[in-house]
Amino acid sequence: MPVVYIEDLAQHFEQEVSIRGWLRHKRMGGKIAFLILRDGTGDMQAVMSKATVGEELFAQANKLTQESSVIVTGKVRADPRAPGGCELDVRDLRPVQLVAQEFPIQAKEHGTGFLMENRHLWLRSHRQHAILRVRHEIIRACRNFFDDRGFVLVDTPIFTPNACEGTTTLFETDYFGEKAYLTQSGQLYNEATAAAFGKVYCFGPTFRAEKSKTRRHLMEFWMIEPEVAYAELQDMMALAEEFLIVIVRSVLKLRREELKVLERDVSKLEAIAAPFPRITYQEAVERLQERGNPIQPGDDFGGDEETILSKEFDRPVIVHRYPKIIKAFYMQEDPENPALALCMDVLAPEGYGEIIGGGQRIHERDKLEARLKEHRLSEDAFKWYLDLRTFGSVPHAGFGMGIERAVAWICGLEHVRETIPFPRMLYKIYP
Amino acid sequence: MPVVYIEDLAQHFEQEVSIRGWLRHKRMGGKIAFLILRDGTGDMQAVMSKATVGEELFAQANKLTQESSVIVTGKVRADPRAPGGCELDVRDLRPVQLVAQEFPIQAKEHGTGFLMENRHLWLRSHRQHAILRVRHEIIRACRNFFDDRGFVLVDTPIFTPNACEGTTTLFETDYFGEKAYLTQSGQLYNEATAAAFGKVYCFGPTFRAEKSKTRRHLMEFWMIEPEVAYAELQDMMALAEEFLIVIVRSVLKLRREELKVLERDVSKLEAIAAPFPRITYQEAVERLQERGNPIQPGDDFGGDEETILSKEFDRPVIVHRYPKIIKAFYMQEDPENPALALCMDVLAPEGYGEIIGGGQRIHERDKLEARLKEHRLSEDAFKWYLDLRTFGSVPHAGFGMGIERAVAWICGLEHVRETIPFPRMLYKIYP
Repeated sequence: MPVVYIEDLAQHFEQEVSIRGWLRHKRMGGKIAFLILRDGTGDMQAVMSKATVGEELFAQANKLTQESSVIVTGKVRADPRAPGGCELDVRDLRPVQLVAQEFPIQAKEHGTGFLMENRHLWLRSHRQHAILRVRHEIIRACRNFFDDRGFVLVDTPIFTPNACEGTTTLFETDYFGEKAYLTQSGQLYNEATAAAFGKVYCFGPTFRAEKSKTRRHLMEFWMIEPEVAYAELQDMMALAEEFLIVIVRSVLKLRREELKVLERDVSKLEAIAAPFPRITYQEAVERLQERGNPIQPGDDFGGDEETILSKEFDRPVIVHRYPKIIKAFYMQEDPENPALALCMDVLAPEGYGEIIGGGQRIHERDKLEARLKEHRLSEDAFKWYLDLRTFGSVPHAGFGMGIERAVAWICGLEHVRETIPFPRMLYKIYP
Repeated sequence: MPVVYIEDLAQHFEQEVSIRGWLRHKRMGGKIAFLILRDGTGDMQAVMSKATVGEELFAQANKLTQESSVIVTGKVRADPRAPGGCELDVRDLRPVQLVAQEFPIQAKEHGTGFLMENRHLWLRSHRQHAILRVRHEIIRACRNFFDDRGFVLVDTPIFTPNACEGTTTLFETDYFGEKAYLTQSGQLYNEATAAAFGKVYCFGPTFRAEKSKTRRHLMEFWMIEPEVAYAELQDMMALAEEFLIVIVRSVLKLRREELKVLERDVSKLEAIAAPFPRITYQEAVERLQERGNPIQPGDDFGGDEETILSKEFDRPVIVHRYPKIIKAFYMQEDPENPALALCMDVLAPEGYGEIIGGGQRIHERDKLEARLKEHRLSEDAFKWYLDLRTFGSVPHAGFGMGIERAVAWICGLEHVRETIPFPRMLYKIYP
């Protein structure tokens, strides 16, 4: 008897198969029972008639409670009305575990706190399934994008002695008597590997100990970061544009069912095409002021400003050339206006805000040394980073995309907490 | 003028192109110069004749030092003697940065300490290139293997409140006033997601604060871990076998040049085929004793024992059913001998030792509760994990493969420290 997954049922019409899964719910009549089963790959209706299976088995079905694990065997029957186009005519049924208490996650509305406490069970719901399958496809598409273009995956370390964007938001650990920090970005290491491999990317978890509770922040999130030697700011704009288009198209192509479950307006995603508008920070500030926002030139954007800007366009907008003073120490300055940095943020549309940040890095040693001093960073800790400016330095640039924000945008979610299997938020580390 | 990468040169015969790279070395004659350039995608010979380029440019070439960054322009000429089958007839040359001091990494032998201090520059060498490109291919093949078989990638958290295999080897951090540990394995979380998705895998960095200096240990290493609902020990043996075969074949197919650089005996890799021998712990102990090893039944294997066993076969060997007492708390016991665990280790051949560990997990709640007590683990912290045994528990199994050990084996390396771009070892966290 072949054991098959529900997603493969349509390849077994008129055959006898076994399905191993869990009960979502059931409808029992006196002579016929309809069992909706899930096995992780999909849902299926199993139909049981008392006349066929006999009193005893029929009584067994009646005992099945929500999320009871069960193996059913029978013939696959085409049924155009059924999800997936088929259902199972049950001949045999074997409960693996009968659940004795009510399953915590019901169809009714639950509070977020409760759902998060039960995240390990909540993951079994249709909506969470859909989100995490889209997440998987986004990650797959990201990797394929860079692999197909000759980038080498070079994993950067999690433990680092360097504080890249200030120490206040770093998680610290004792590393055999030394202090080590958890990485906030692989970029500095990417710069070393880009000089070795030309085009590289890293992909891994990153950490920010920010005491903030917003719908866009997690303490632990995944980031994909390409870095390219002999590349400048405009090359990164073009790369980020192509990258986002390819990812959105992959999801539209392969995860349309999931977007339907999420009630995502796919027309908004279908509109994502080149060219993305490119506006300077200066232009962005003017737009914001026109919309009544109190921002002043020189201020950094917060969530509100990003939301306003990202509602202005039907596709991602690239904001470039922010004031150098509000950006990280390694940013190259604009030769046409040294007060500006050759950097960019890409804001997703529909109010989703920043999903990509990047730019061109300083490649001149003297400039970098001066910047380290200004930022009171130790030259000793950055000795290796300075070396990159001594041994064959070239202009280079890169960017980073936060996976969770991209998932939130593409899925159309209110909050990033559902975009990762086990979110780590302020004061929340269970389960 | 098209700017191309060296790996694509053969598509541009007889065309004028620019190459942006770095000087590996040069040979200067009075009238002709041979420059060996690298650009991260490969090496290439650029030929410059004084008669063609003139005195001034020729003098520029003479100034180029090792690792100076330089852009050369000229016509691509087929030359069967050259690596890649072509070379560049230089018409123009533009140094980007002349390196003013000797490049630290020379052809001569350096000590490991020195190389590790200069890891950011060492990565530019042929050997490190080859290893990290094999690593990339192994990771790509691992992901494709599971993606192609319907596994869902479900990332497990790095921050965890649980201590999975004892607290002494955990890195700890302050998480807003709470203690959090860095994950040693995604397995427990995989068990939750396997119950939701049927077949899952996670892939990310894991951490062990082991005060050991061996050729097989890193403090930070990457692990890929599949977990399958309704699966038992023998299913994992079959899955691990197929998995390793597919990975080795991918590397043989796509990274043969790199294996040549590493002087890897590929016949050893070509021999990797099903079936892998499967021996019990008991049989393994007998074999070890026959070879004169002092091991006693009940002892765990150390590096020495693994080395001996893994030299016995021309392919990976699966050792199964270790004593329960030397294994983690969550291991299912063998119904035929409750003193044994339904677990396995896969040892790579040629003395490489364990690269995979896994097995079947306890799925009965009462047994798991008893085991938590025995191991003095808090039921409170494992409440969610126990829930999985209350709500539709099923037999399930999985395994984990350490990427760095797999890379060491496939590349034929002495030590794992070269298998990851920036190794984190005892007392070593720079660069």
